[in-house]
Order: sequence, then C-alpha cells, then structure tokens
Amino acid sequence: MAYHKPEAKTVQDLKDMAHKLRIHSINATEASKSGHPTSCSSLAEIMSVLFFQQMRLNMKHPRDPSSDRLVLSKGHAGPILYAAWAEAGLFPIEELKNLRKIDSDLEGHPTPRLNFIDVGTGSLGQGVAMGAGMAYVGKNYDKADYRTYVIVGDGESAEGSIWESLHFASHYELDNLCVIFDVNRLGQSEPTSLQHRMDVYRERLEAFGFNALVVDGHDVEELCKAFHCASVTKNKPTAIIAKTLKGKDFPDIEDLDNWHGKALGAKAACVIKSLQSQIVNPNVKLTPKKMCKGSLAPEVDITNIKLCAPPNYKLGDKVPTRLAYGTALAKVAADNDRVIALDGDTKNSTYSDRLRNAYPERYIECFIAEQNLVGVAIGATCRRRTVAFVSTFATFFTRAFDQIRMGAISQTNVNFVGSHCGCSIGEDGPSQMGLEDIAMFRSIPGSTVFYPSDAVSTERAVELAANTKGICFIRTSRPETCVIYNNDDTFAIGRGRVVRQKPSDEVLLIGAGITLDECISAAEQLEKECITARVIDPFTVKPLDVELIVEQGKQCGGRVVVVEDHYQQGGLGEAVLSALAEHRNFVVKHLFVPTVPRSGPPAVLVDMYGISARHIVAAVNAIIKK
Amino acid sequence: MAYHKPEAKTVQDLKDMAHKLRIHSINATEASKSGHPTSCSSLAEIMSVLFFQQMRLNMKHPRDPSSDRLVLSKGHAGPILYAAWAEAGLFPIEELKNLRKIDSDLEGHPTPRLNFIDVGTGSLGQGVAMGAGMAYVGKNYDKADYRTYVIVGDGESAEGSIWESLHFASHYELDNLCVIFDVNRLGQSEPTSLQHRMDVYRERLEAFGFNALVVDGHDVEELCKAFHCASVTKNKPTAIIAKTLKGKDFPDIEDLDNWHGKALGAKAACVIKSLQSQIVNPNVKLTPKKMCKGSLAPEVDITNIKLCAPPNYKLGDKVPTRLAYGTALAKVAADNDRVIALDGDTKNSTYSDRLRNAYPERYIECFIAEQNLVGVAIGATCRRRTVAFVSTFATFFTRAFDQIRMGAISQTNVNFVGSHCGCSIGEDGPSQMGLEDIAMFRSIPGSTVFYPSDAVSTERAVELAANTKGICFIRTSRPETCVIYNNDDTFAIGRGRVVRQKPSDEVLLIGAGITLDECISAAEQLEKECITARVIDPFTVKPLDVELIVEQGKQCGGRVVVVEDHYQQGGLGEAVLSALAEHRNFVVKHLFVPTVPRSGPPAVLVDMYGISARHIVAAVNAIIKK
Repeated sequence: MAYHKPEAKTVQDLKDMAHKLRIHSINATEASKSGHPTSCSSLAEIMSVLFFQQMRLNMKHPRDPSSDRLVLSKGHAGPILYAAWAEAGLFPIEELKNLRKIDSDLEGHPTPRLNFIDVGTGSLGQGVAMGAGMAYVGKNYDKADYRTYVIVGDGESAEGSIWESLHFASHYELDNLCVIFDVNRLGQSEPTSLQHRMDVYRERLEAFGFNALVVDGHDVEELCKAFHCASVTKNKPTAIIAKTLKGKDFPDIEDLDNWHGKALGAKAACVIKSLQSQIVNPNVKLTPKKMCKGSLAPEVDITNIKLCAPPNYKLGDKVPTRLAYGTALAKVAADNDRVIALDGDTKNSTYSDRLRNAYPERYIECFIAEQNLVGVAIGATCRRRTVAFVSTFATFFTRAFDQIRMGAISQTNVNFVGSHCGCSIGEDGPSQMGLEDIAMFRSIPGSTVFYPSDAVSTERAVELAANTKGICFIRTSRPETCVIYNNDDTFAIGRGRVVRQKPSDEVLLIGAGITLDECISAAEQLEKECITARVIDPFTVKPLDVELIVEQGKQCGGRVVVVEDHYQQGGLGEAVLSALAEHRNFVVKHLFVPTVPRSGPPAVLVDMYGISARHIVAAVNAIIKK
Repeated sequence: MAYHKPEAKTVQDLKDMAHKLRIHSINATEASKSGHPTSCSSLAEIMSVLFFQQMRLNMKHPRDPSSDRLVLSKGHAGPILYAAWAEAGLFPIEELKNLRKIDSDLEGHPTPRLNFIDVGTGSLGQGVAMGAGMAYVGKNYDKADYRTYVIVGDGESAEGSIWESLHFASHYELDNLCVIFDVNRLGQSEPTSLQHRMDVYRERLEAFGFNALVVDGHDVEELCKAFHCASVTKNKPTAIIAKTLKGKDFPDIEDLDNWHGKALGAKAACVIKSLQSQIVNPNVKLTPKKMCKGSLAPEVDITNIKLCAPPNYKLGDKVPTRLAYGTALAKVAADNDRVIALDGDTKNSTYSDRLRNAYPERYIECFIAEQNLVGVAIGATCRRRTVAFVSTFATFFTRAFDQIRMGAISQTNVNFVGSHCGCSIGEDGPSQMGLEDIAMFRSIPGSTVFYPSDAVSTERAVELAANTKGICFIRTSRPETCVIYNNDDTFAIGRGRVVRQKPSDEVLLIGAGITLDECISAAEQLEKECITARVIDPFTVKPLDVELIVEQGKQCGGRVVVVEDHYQQGGLGEAVLSALAEHRNFVVKHLFVPTVPRSGPPAVLVDMYGISARHIVAAVNAIIKK
C-alpha cells in the first residue's frame, strides 16, 4: 500500500483540530481547577492525527471488538483523550467541563466507567503491556484487522515494565501494535533523564526489536507518514518517537519546568486567545474513519464455561492442588476455545503446561517478566475476547501488585493462580514462599480469593473462576494434600464446608490448604484427649462464609482456632476476625508464620513456624479454658 | 593501567578452580537432593576469576566497608557462591554439604544470615538495583576504591527492573559497577527468548549506556581481560556479556533442556569423574586478592539520629503530614550527614525536595522507576553506609512490593514514606490513591508502620524511623490535618495516645490521619446527643498498642469503632481486630473504603465512601445498643 501525502486542506484541518483539542483541555482543567493541560498539549497533533486520520472506530459502539484500540498509558493526559472523543461526536463538547466532578465519569485519569475506555491508566508504565495483550489476541486469536495504539509518556518510559512489554511485542512480532512515545522532555519535578536525546530512544527501541521512527510530534504530515509506515511494516511492531514540547503553543509556559499537573489559572485566557489566533477554520469538523471492511473479529461466547469432565479422584488420594489446577485448566480449555493461559517461565511448576500440552496455541509464554505477564493478560481479556488464567509462584505476583491493583480499576476478569504458597514449599527458602499473597489479593476491590484444600475443590475453583467477574485468585500448594471431597460434591463462592463435626464440639478449627490437613490431624489427636473439635474448610477466603463461621463458632462455645501458612496480616486469620468483628463473645486464636522462614524440609518448617497439628492441639488446650 | 595477560600457570589454576567449584556444587546439591547445579556450572569460570583474580576481599571481615561487593542476582546459583567462599578459606569445604539443611545458613537462595551476603536474592531481577545502590554510595559518598559486581542470569534479564537499573547506572556514570550476564541460553521451562543472540544483548546494553563486552564465559583469559577493561573504563558502567552453557562440562546434560533446578542424582558420579579428569592440579589452592591500599571507605556513625530542632507548630494549625515529613527529613539530615533521600520524580508532592534543597548531593533522583528506586535504597544502606528515606505516592510502592518483601529477607533498614494515601486525595482519582499500602507494609516481617495524624507526631515518626531496625513505613496524607500535640510531646513505637476521654465514655473511636480528625468531630457531635466517646490515635499501626486498646476498650463497654481511609483488608481495622482476637466481649464496627473510589472533592469522597464524622456517628448509634 503506497503512501499518499494528505492534501493541504486535510493537513490544515488536522492542525486546527489539534489546537481545538488544546483549548478543550485547558477549558476542562480550568473548570476542575486541576489536571494536566501541558501534558495534553504535547499530544495534540498526535491525538488529532490518530482520531481523524488514522484509527478506525465505530462511534455507535466504542468497544466494538473489530475497531481499533487506543490505550493512553500516560493517563494524566485524559482531558485531551476525552476531548478527541467529544470532537468525534461521542458526547457533547460541553460535558468536558464536568472533568473530575463527582457525578461525571470524566475522571482525573481514564477508567472503564467510560464506555470508550478499555483499561484504567494513571499508574505509569502499564499501557504497553495491555496494548500488547490486545494486539496478541488480534493477531493470533481474532485474526482480525484491528490495530492497537498505545501512547506512552517519556517520563514513564523509565519504568522497566515498558521494556518488558516492548521485548514481548517484538518477540511475538506484533506488527499490529504501534507505540507512540510523547517525548516532551519534562517530568513532574524536573526534566526527564534523557530529555530530548531522540537518538538514545531510537537506539534502545531498535535494539528491542522495533521499527523505530523519530518524528517531530507537532508536524501533522510527519505523523501521517509514520503511521502509514507502521501500518505496512510486517513482523515488527512500530514505535513512533515523537519529539514534542510540554505546553506546546502555550506562551510563557511551553517547554518550561514547574508547569506539570496545574491548571493554567490566570494565564488560561491569554493562552486560549493565542491558540484561537492560530486556527484557520474555527468551525473545522472531522470524523474518524469507519471500521475496515477486512477481517472482523469473530463472535465469541465466554459464558457458562464448564470442566469438560468432572473431577476424577479417590477419597484419600494424595494430590498437590497445583497439579489439580493444571488438570482443571486443560478441562476448561477443552470446553471453550477462548480459555487461554499465561505464565512466566514457571509452567512446569505451576502445571499451566497442561494447557500448553493440549492446546499449544492458547498458551502465551511471557518469560520472567511478571509485570508484563499480568498486563498482557488484562489486555487479552478486554472486550470479552478471552478468559485468561495467569500463573506463577504466588509470591511473584507481588512483582505485579500495581498492575493487579490497576486491574481492579480496569474492571478486569483475569484469573490469577499462585502456586508454592507458604513455608511448606521447603528447601528453596523464603524468597520463593508466598506468605503475603492472600493479604495482597484480599485487598483488591471486588476480588474473589479461592484457597482450595484438595484436588476436587481445586478443579471446581477453576471452573467457578472462569465464570466469575472481577479478579479471581486461586492459591495452590506444592505438597500433596488429601482428597477429602467426592467427585460430585458441589462448591460455591462464599460457601465453606464443615469437614468434621460432633454435637459435643467445643472448639472450631479453620484451616486451608496444608493447614486443613493439620487441623484434621489435630482434631483426631484431640479426640484422644476427650476434646472434640469441629473443622471448617472456608474454600473461599474472600468472600468468606460469614454465616457458617458465626453459626458453627457459636455452637463451639465461641472458641475459634485459625491456622494458615501465611503471615499474620491480611490472610485467612484476619478475614475470620473481620467476619466476627460485630459479634461479641468470640475468642480467636490465630496461628500463622511469625517471621521470615528459612530453608528446610516442609514438615520441619511447618512445625518450626507453629502451624502444625501439634501447635493446633496446644492452641486448643489453651483456648478451651477461655 | 596496562593489561597484563595472566601467566599460563595462573590460567590453568583458574580453570582447575572452576572445575572444583563445579564439583562442590554437584556434591552440595546431591547432599540436599535439590538445587540448581547446572545453573552453577555455567558460572564456574566467572566465579573462579572473580574470586581468585579480580575481587579484593577481607577474609577476616567479609562485610568490610572497603572491600569489593558481589551480588548474585541469580540467587539459585547460591551453591557455587558458597563454594567460592569456602575455597577462599572463609569456612570448611565440608560445610557445603549442609546446603538447604534446617540448621545451616547455606540456604536454597542466599540471605544475609550468612556473614558474606549483603542482600537476599532469589526473586529474580533485583540484584542490579542493589548493586547500583552500593556503587552510587561508593562513588559519591564513600569516595572509595571498592568495586561492585553483580551476576545476572539471562532468564532474569527479561525483568524490566533490570533495565530500570541499567539506565540508572549509566545515567549516574557508575564506572565502579560491573554487571556480568551469564547467558546460558536456557530458562526453567524452555530456552530464553533471546537464547544465544549475543548481538542483541550487546546492542541493548550499549543503547542503555554500558561499556558492553561479549566474551566466552568459559574462557578464563577472556574473562580476565574483560574485567581489566571494566576496571579502567571511566564514566560508564561495564557489562560483561558471557556466552555460557548451562551444565557446562556435564556429559549428556550440558546445554540440554529439562535440567533446571534438579540434583544430578544417578548421573552425579559420572559427571564428577569427568570433571576431575579435566583438572590438571587437583591440589590447586588460590587466595583472593587483599583489599586495595587506595581510598578506603570512611568510618560512619548512623546511630542516635535526632531532629536538629524540635517540631515548631501551634495547636490547631492546619498542616499536611506530607509537608511535616519534608520538614523533618531536612532536620534529621542536618543532624547526620549519612541521611539520604530517594524519590521517583514526585519530590515536589512528597516534599522530599526539602532535603534536596538543603543538601542536593544527598538526594538521589530515581525518576519514574519504583522498583529500581527501592532496590537502590536497599543497596545504599548495606554495610550501614547510609540511612535512606524513600518516598513516592503510597500506592506506587505496590510497584515494588516484591523488592520490599525481599528487603525484609535482606534485613534492610530502609525507611519508606508514602504520601497521597486514601480517597482523601480527591480529584486525581483511584489510580493515585493509596488504599492497600497499610496491608502491604503490615505484611512485611519485622516492619514498623507509622500512621501519624498531625505534624508534630509526623516529625517524631521520622526521627524514630531513622533509628529503627527493619523496614519502616510512614503513611502521610495530602490534606491538611489539625496539629493536636504539643511540640514537646513524646512519641514511641507501639505507644498510642488517648486524645479525648471522659469517665462516662461508652464507645472507643480509633482513627488515624484524616480519620482521626473525623473521629474527633464525631465525638463532638455525639456529645450533643449525650453520648460520650473516647478517641485513640494509634500512632503506629504495627506494632499496635494492644494494651492501650484493650484497656481503653474495656472501659468503653467493649464497643470499638475503627475508621480508616484504606480498604477493609489488612489495614488499621484488621490490626485492631487482631489485637482483640483473644479477648471475649468486644464488638467492633469497622468503617473503611468499600470499593474503588472515583474522582471528586476530598470531603465529598470521604463522606461518599462512609468514613466521615457523619458515618462515625451513625456507627456509634448502632453499636451503642450492642
């Protein structure tokens, strides 16, 4: 496809539109008395060309699966993105002045509360991963013509996550991805470390496998040409490295420090006047290109996903729940061809390789780069294109806590599966032990936290997660645990199970994973001492089955012992305490890993850190007097 | 300094030593029946040359401030590091067979429980940041001759954190830093994405500002020459990109997949025999170089740090605690010239710029790269060289949760200061709000979590943190809060304060930051309804003043209302519930931010999400009947 230089009128219209977008950004941030007009201004020509020359959109349905995607990684430039959609006709220009108001979805940084936003941004350096996930799906699963654009600030290009994602994009030859770097030279508190060293950006991006084009980011024609080049470049993603000025065309503000994140205030009127004077046609009206008539994204149904076959274990079998995860993952993938798995080079430990073995094309290897791993999954699930299961060691999700947190703001439905939880992993030592993962995932708004204790319930957790909105986390264990459920037992989110009881029970034991086994052992030992203990498997730590715990706890004299292979804070124990907070007359003994563990055999560590049956027995003997 | 080629005998000795280190790694992992002998083998010549030709060490005091530093970022190769120290004479070779045993500090991955380890590794991609912190201190504060070496695996070089740190190192011209890439081609579960594409590594490292040298990592002479080149290169850090083979010289294992993280088992004897046959002098004995006689690191005293002047506020003044932080930071820096501050381009929001304004050379700008920010701080504080305060928005520390978690394993004393907590930041919206930061920092073993509510107590928190072991976190707020303490009031870790009480109190209110102000307002309103409420400021959320809360709570009929600008999980509320767990007869109402907030005015959001005085009054009216 040859490049056709835009006509002079088109060029002038795009220039005029850029200035209009600048003015809207100023007016909006003046109305809200806060925001980032100078960070918008550096982007104005880029935004004008993208919306009115480049992207193919469906204005009736902004999240049409077949339309182009745009991720504004530098989310603080939200006002100019909103302005572009308004100029494109999605909503009235007047609404822009509701920016940051309590009853407007035009928030300080974009979120999917707006129908034209796929992912929340505002924590920097995350957009390329999400864009790469969208592009991967477009190229490999949808096999459609839509393209994905990501706008990155130069300040945020210091984030390592960006470089993880650039590597991912070139490794998988995502030629449907175009990343625009808005190199406006100035950060929040001082110039960026590379300022306007465009050569360094180009060298780095070329070394990372990109078709790297340096342009004047305020030259509409150069931008048109670069976008064309991107669209015809095969087997490589393109980076458009745009040299821009922060506060471009704002007299006495352009390219000056100390103007980050401030409305222009007293200077606004004068700046707007100056911009207006540069507009040739104040009534310029442009419309985005319609969607391409080429390959559309297929219809996809990701509802009502089932295990293709029920669990198949014998009571008393010893199976690690991480292995049951792998088995179940392959089973849900057999049921729905939009189930995918992603992992960070731990697939033979998490058992996500079970999906890869069955459906190699539906496994995305993300190598050792957990932030990108999570971001790609969030991107891949946008517009309900896929159901993603992301696995690594539970503790390595801490590497992507910010991405997961932003995932909740993005309203993502990604499922996370963390293996190797707790000190019970043994000899590898504390760096590999997930001991804060429940605290992390519980703190995510709207999350569901599964902590299955045997293979049957693990398989059902996977099936439930595949169909559950919001972020799901499944915590799996490295050691074998006993199969305690029948293959046809049913499980539900927020429904715990009593796994051992007698009318005479004097204490309620709550454990999960390996500590449920320890609770059962403890109950057996206690019976010899003529103390009977009830045992509960919570199944989900969030939501917790409050009703069950309160009711069963009351029947046991209000005495509760909670045991977990996790630190004290934010885990199962504190979840139980929250459940009981408004009930008087409970006493709870909480056993947890109290300090950084060391290397050693699993059973030795479980005992050394006070969460074995022996310690549960001692806790019961102490609490029974209370 | 001209390069002198090593003599033939030296070369042979180093080769022999490399094979001995391989054999020790095999024997150790055989004894533990687990570990990573093939990941050790690719490193053998590098380790031999580093220890016995390159590094300057004090064998009597491995953490001598003037000796060279070595960070093994690929911590799973621990056994060969242990073997090198044993061959150097630090401890008997026989001890290597205690690898991973419960009573040995030779853990699966290195930790500072060993006297020759500065930082824990094992979560990949963190070593370069810590090494860069050490090198920054060596060059700029110690102004000493010691050099810092970091060994990075090729698998982990996919971690973005590495690229953040490489950029940092070249930006600050850390020519005393040498990063060795062990490019052994194979990851855990499949080949790395770049395999042996040495040209790509070189291009990327050159583009990131390094003196990049590609060598045969098994050629002792090439390694000697490269290390020499590194030592004479000025104003640039050096990367030695070593092409190696995983399981080098292990017959039927070398360069083959599926040998990651496995003891050799039945093959061990045959491999050892083959290695032994290649050793020319089985009795080879080498010693590391002594410490250089040039510039030594100065004596440093970082104990008993004080505010150089007491707080200076008036009761009732309105001051944001983030501003009080900046003031206090400059004051402790005035008292001790080893107090430093690091920030990620938010210094004009966190107010860490107050230190930079006073002592520019003691401020390290880390730009927008929080993982590196945290890692550099951990490295900078090693060997008690500095007291570091690291600041950014509270929520952006989630970006470095893994580094902070590993910081606890590293026994670091870094102080973290997170501003912009909670929905009370207002219009910027949820991406900028710290709502899970207490949960995160509470989950860190041995951490201290300060949540000061006024300017006076904030200044004292800074002073206490400067002198406290382990990780400290200070949560500061964006809005102004009332000064409620006198300038000479004293504060201690784990000591809360009753800020309002009457003998008739029927309920205990606990808040912190902006919610303490809300509690005080609520108590004033309640008094008009003839309900008197006691109010506690916990000062530290961890450790929490359990005794005070239990005692005061009992005096208030066991009725407690906790209010926080944080999500439900893992914050102040669950800390209080943990404190009361073993006490019957308490009832706790917990007010928290229940969902992802939106943009809006601070006071509107605080009310909308249920943590304002009005909601506290309602909660008290409900709980008073219980």
